Amino acid sequence: MGAYLHNKMTKIISGFSKLTKEEKINWLAENYFNNNSNAITTIKQYWHDDKKLQQLHDDFIENTVSNFYLPMGVAPNFLINGTEYAIPMVTEESSVVAAASLVAKFWSTKGGFKTSVLGTTKIGQVHFMFAGKKAALDSYFNKNKTALFEATASITKNMEKRGGGILDIKLVDKTAQLENYYQLHITFETKDSMGANFINSCLEAISTEFRNDEIEIVMSILSNYVPECLVRAEVSCKIEELGVQNPQKFAEKFQQAVKIAEIEPYRAVTHNKGIMNGVDAVVLATGNDFRAVEAGVHAYAARSGSYTSLSHCTIDNGIFKFWLELPLALGTVGGITALHPLAKLSLEMLQKPSAAVLMQIIAAAGLAQNFAALRALTTKGIQHGHMKMHLQNILNQLGATQAEKDQITTFFEGKTVSHSAVVSKFKEINRC
Amino acid sequence: MGAYLHNKMTKIISGFSKLTKEEKINWLAENYFNNNSNAITTIKQYWHDDKKLQQLHDDFIENTVSNFYLPMGVAPNFLINGTEYAIPMVTEESSVVAAASLVAKFWSTKGGFKTSVLGTTKIGQVHFMFAGKKAALDSYFNKNKTALFEATASITKNMEKRGGGILDIKLVDKTAQLENYYQLHITFETKDSMGANFINSCLEAISTEFRNDEIEIVMSILSNYVPECLVRAEVSCKIEELGVQNPQKFAEKFQQAVKIAEIEPYRAVTHNKGIMNGVDAVVLATGNDFRAVEAGVHAYAARSGSYTSLSHCTIDNGIFKFWLELPLALGTVGGITALHPLAKLSLEMLQKPSAAVLMQIIAAAGLAQNFAALRALTTKGIQHGHMKMHLQNILNQLGATQAEKDQITTFFEGKTVSHSAVVSKFKEINRC
Repeated sequence: MGAYLHNKMTKIISGFSKLTKEEKINWLAENYFNNNSNAITTIKQYWHDDKKLQQLHDDFIENTVSNFYLPMGVAPNFLINGTEYAIPMVTEESSVVAAASLVAKFWSTKGGFKTSVLGTTKIGQVHFMFAGKKAALDSYFNKNKTALFEATASITKNMEKRGGGILDIKLVDKTAQLENYYQLHITFETKDSMGANFINSCLEAISTEFRNDEIEIVMSILSNYVPECLVRAEVSCKIEELGVQNPQKFAEKFQQAVKIAEIEPYRAVTHNKGIMNGVDAVVLATGNDFRAVEAGVHAYAARSGSYTSLSHCTIDNGIFKFWLELPLALGTVGGITALHPLAKLSLEMLQKPSAAVLMQIIAAAGLAQNFAALRALTTKGIQHGHMKMHLQNILNQLGATQAEKDQITTFFEGKTVSHSAVVSKFKEINRC
Repeated sequence: MGAYLHNKMTKIISGFSKLTKEEKINWLAENYFNNNSNAITTIKQYWHDDKKLQQLHDDFIENTVSNFYLPMGVAPNFLINGTEYAIPMVTEESSVVAAASLVAKFWSTKGGFKTSVLGTTKIGQVHFMFAGKKAALDSYFNKNKTALFEATASITKNMEKRGGGILDIKLVDKTAQLENYYQLHITFETKDSMGANFINSCLEAISTEFRNDEIEIVMSILSNYVPECLVRAEVSCKIEELGVQNPQKFAEKFQQAVKIAEIEPYRAVTHNKGIMNGVDAVVLATGNDFRAVEAGVHAYAARSGSYTSLSHCTIDNGIFKFWLELPLALGTVGGITALHPLAKLSLEMLQKPSAAVLMQIIAAAGLAQNFAALRALTTKGIQHGHMKMHLQNILNQLGATQAEKDQITTFFEGKTVSHSAVVSKFKEINRC
């Protein structure tokens, strides 16, 4: 073994991060793959031939050993506020891109998606403890408020040129919930950047300026809860344009499904998960942070005290209307948006949108996904389509030839697809 | 242009999914990239040379044009219930893998992570409308309950062999919330599979058996809200083992940060987002569905009516204890776990865990991430580490040489890193 520290009794290692990529993989093979050379081959087969490009991808995170492929697909035919888009989507889940494409096409002949941004402000907080008199703290805060803004001048200079910056700093008394606990609650406008680094840098500068012998800063950090960074997407049409056999019945059943998601948390969670299938696929494709988006969206869905649907539906005067509101903190500059060649390409495919435009595109993708799921669920059920995909995946796993695939697919038409039934059929064919 | 339908007036296209991959890309280039050949080159440079392997990845979703690279890193030194693990992590966010590795090493000398599974059952529901007398429905349900189980016999046969299946079917009256609305609320055990296809197939079979002229099925679908599919992870040690200058003070401030996340939703959302940075990285690496996990986790965080922290901390009799509970519905068989060569490799790296063991590994990864974030936030702040990474990313973006990187990194030690400041310094050096 190499030059690194290695205790034969355990697999605990010092200095792993300092090893070269080759050494890391050799260590993994020795310690976690019984020196199986197939593991090394699998890891390396995903490396890019272009070493400089590979280095770029390696440097995004730490201890990189390979590139995890997630399929990148495209859903064309989105008409959003009169502009046509082909939307890049990155997901491992089958049916998501197909559903988006079908629904986009469907609504493109009915005016498309109407979207609007309801707000773009973001929040950061300095959390601190103060045991003295509240009046003294109020007075200290008011006296120093201007200085708190000034303390961020070098950080905010460029953001202000772009029309962003710190909008407000408030002192919040939280002592009723936790003894001695106060906050500086700070509102930001970060324009086309997601703004995490900007906000956190501002907060740390503010807390350094604000602290004194009586004020103990616990932490300074942005919030991923962004109820004021909100976007709305809507589709609507006359009921008879819904293009099904009994459109009135379809509309009513669809609306019932939405109402159920509004009042039943077990359903609401999955309903919203379907929305996020569309949202996250575009978030990933554009180099944004899906954990931040997920946390903000689901907390928003629970804001009333009961977890509920993000989308809603009305039928009024013969008009079917379906819409959602989502908090989305996104960037189209900064982070890896310009560093990852495919994230950059995704933004180019979307005609280099501002963050506000990207919010609207992603909200439309989420609404499309929700419409597709509810349409399938309330008509023939979702297993019909899923099982067709599932069958193809099982056949790929079995290494079936195209002829075998065709024969087995025909056999399973109208039948229940289970893994064991497909394996039996495959074996049966291969015994012949 | 090719054989596909194309209306020159619009970019709306019919039959896009039927085009070959080449034709799809050419259509994109013509319609959304002004025929820029760089776009085509970028898309194709990520294709794998091995056509069969590329076809496998193309088939996971629809309209695939390329492979989106997400870096795959490894965090070694996790000691979980006495077993050592190197954990594969897939994420685009810098610092996540480094934080996991550091914290894993730190706790490996203090007994490591103690984890346990608190439950593994999952939920599916048949949502239906019934306008008749409740007593008649009760009677119909009770008379047919055995038949509902029997209706799934061909689907559940293999799952039952593995120890899983349908545990219970209950009739739930929801008419107080929505007129005529009832559910069949069904509990499942799906062992090592995530179980989405299994549950949905069972539900559709049950709803077909259950429907009659008076019962209108709205939809049948699993729930991603899984509060009974729950895992716990904990670390603890004597305060003096915390390995900082003033361990008592550190422990108290750390606990304050946790308490703040327990009572303040703006903080709780970001606190839990940090946990999910660790969770999702392993969820992705093992071929699981992060949207399902995210939805279930955040809804669980909001179950009390107020969105709150998933982790908690106590200091008792000189012992520091830090733990979390998470709902996690995962699979180690089925889906793409065995189809995606790197998902399969991840499971091999983790010694082919059962779903229950994977729940525990992922909970440990989430707790590690949360510990790292709180430790950084309550001591030197998170920007210190982030900014170092940020600087490297900006330098990569500028195409800086290693010598330039070294010089500029030295220059920014102890200084605030901003994009514009780094660009200025880079230009200054290159003017010389």
